[in-house]
Amino acid sequence: MEQKRILCVGLVCLDIINVVDKFPEEDTDTRCVSQRWQRGGNASNSCTVLSLLGAPCAFMGSLAAGPIADFILNDFKMYHIDVSLVTEHAQCSCPTSVVIGNQTSGSRTILHMNRNLPDVCADDFSQLDLSQYRWIHFEGRNADEQVKMIEQVKSYNATQEEKNRITISVEIEKTRPSLYQLFPHGDVVFVSKDVALHFGFQSASSAVKGFYSQVKDGAVLICAWAEKGADAMGPDGTVVHSDAFPPEKLVDTLGAGDTFNASVIYTLSNGGSLQEALTFGCQIAGKKCGVHGYDGILQ
Amino acid sequence: MEQKRILCVGLVCLDIINVVDKFPEEDTDTRCVSQRWQRGGNASNSCTVLSLLGAPCAFMGSLAAGPIADFILNDFKMYHIDVSLVTEHAQCSCPTSVVIGNQTSGSRTILHMNRNLPDVCADDFSQLDLSQYRWIHFEGRNADEQVKMIEQVKSYNATQEEKNRITISVEIEKTRPSLYQLFPHGDVVFVSKDVALHFGFQSASSAVKGFYSQVKDGAVLICAWAEKGADAMGPDGTVVHSDAFPPEKLVDTLGAGDTFNASVIYTLSNGGSLQEALTFGCQIAGKKCGVHGYDGILQ
Repeated sequence: MEQKRILCVGLVCLDIINVVDKFPEEDTDTRCVSQRWQRGGNASNSCTVLSLLGAPCAFMGSLAAGPIADFILNDFKMYHIDVSLVTEHAQCSCPTSVVIGNQTSGSRTILHMNRNLPDVCADDFSQLDLSQYRWIHFEGRNADEQVKMIEQVKSYNATQEEKNRITISVEIEKTRPSLYQLFPHGDVVFVSKDVALHFGFQSASSAVKGFYSQVKDGAVLICAWAEKGADAMGPDGTVVHSDAFPPEKLVDTLGAGDTFNASVIYTLSNGGSLQEALTFGCQIAGKKCGVHGYDGILQ
Repeated sequence: MEQKRILCVGLVCLDIINVVDKFPEEDTDTRCVSQRWQRGGNASNSCTVLSLLGAPCAFMGSLAAGPIADFILNDFKMYHIDVSLVTEHAQCSCPTSVVIGNQTSGSRTILHMNRNLPDVCADDFSQLDLSQYRWIHFEGRNADEQVKMIEQVKSYNATQEEKNRITISVEIEKTRPSLYQLFPHGDVVFVSKDVALHFGFQSASSAVKGFYSQVKDGAVLICAWAEKGADAMGPDGTVVHSDAFPPEKLVDTLGAGDTFNASVIYTLSNGGSLQEALTFGCQIAGKKCGVHGYDGILQ
């Protein structure tokens, strides 16, 4: 039997990546070392990594029509990511993020653009054949709707035997109050360093301890903290930690968080322990920081 | 009889313009106020302004094939700019410049990309029917070849009556030694503040005095100096000056220099005096700095 898929729901956008030797000063002209178009967006990046790791996966999100959308769809296909759940909106414009990647420091500076693309809603989601998925990951965005989608998955799970139930993960990355309602809705909850700092936590371990009361019974809470590695807490109340695995030379940290999430999901969905998942997540995210883009994260 | 055209030879590229309220700090995420694609490149921008001023004009340059090229060609057409001399290179990629426009300060920070597109060469240029043009402006780039093109125009002029001769202007904008060979080849020579500063001149008037020995007999030398206005010197040896005409609020200075050049060329090509050309150049460039893009520079 074919393995069921992992579905990631969230954003896809175009990243125009400008690699420089030195971050530009205001009102100057800089010549880039290189420039490339890359499919971006958290959920879309996590799909790339899942696919490279060998997990069948699918992306669900919105896309405008036009040349940028064609580039994005083609790239999804190159990575064997199922895009049958992508909705095209002909009248909208595709979000483009400009990224300035400093290859000397590894820093990535991002200019986002608000887009007029509607997010996936609970109505769209209700069309899914949930029996095709074993894990659904939600990049926290339109949380009110996403909670309704998660309720649909929970209703589905209630009708299923244990082995057919879908695991739900959520990512709370941005310091946007509406997203915090997602805490009690994931079997696995990723909370970002940004959100943790915003709530006054100064480390990953204090963040997972502090936020754990927000998640549901039995859930796993995970917080990655860049070069400090990552911590997690499960239902037994012990804090698990992995150090980071920094590459010899930081080259490109864009999408390192999405790589971590995908690698953790991959491990847990294959029955690995929380410690194994954290360590693998930090390893693959470290590899990612040593290469441009995602090809080569397994070498 | 239809009026002969003004031809601009040089670069066209895609500018992806990201308008921000505050210049981004390294390694942060910024949400743009707006984002737009705009046809860019000095010669291409000058064509836009000439066309808005009502002068029939043509652009000569290289373009890759693909969606970006389609966007660019369509935009040329919207501004009624003749693109019959544009060469498409199917195997090349289109140069894209990322521009960060700070609407609080009016600054524009540019990330350029080296492109693999070959510049127009003297061979291409020799195919032209020069009788269609009354003025040819060269954005200094591949100067060795551009000098050969200018020799072709001079040979043509030698066979023509005074009224049919083509005026030649050159722009020396970048501090690239190969470009300095263009000084003696223009009837009108634009030298940038950047080049002037590089040679130790601290003002537009000292620059035109200092560089004048480099231009040919009878030529006009012009140097614009941002908010200090512009100075010029003609064969009579007096320095002509115009103050700048800053807008109430600086909004977007991208292409202000190209706007100045086009407005000066427009005035001189219609028989205006050097003083009139400088003043008009500063006026229109000032308008441009008060609006996004070029529409509205005549209001």
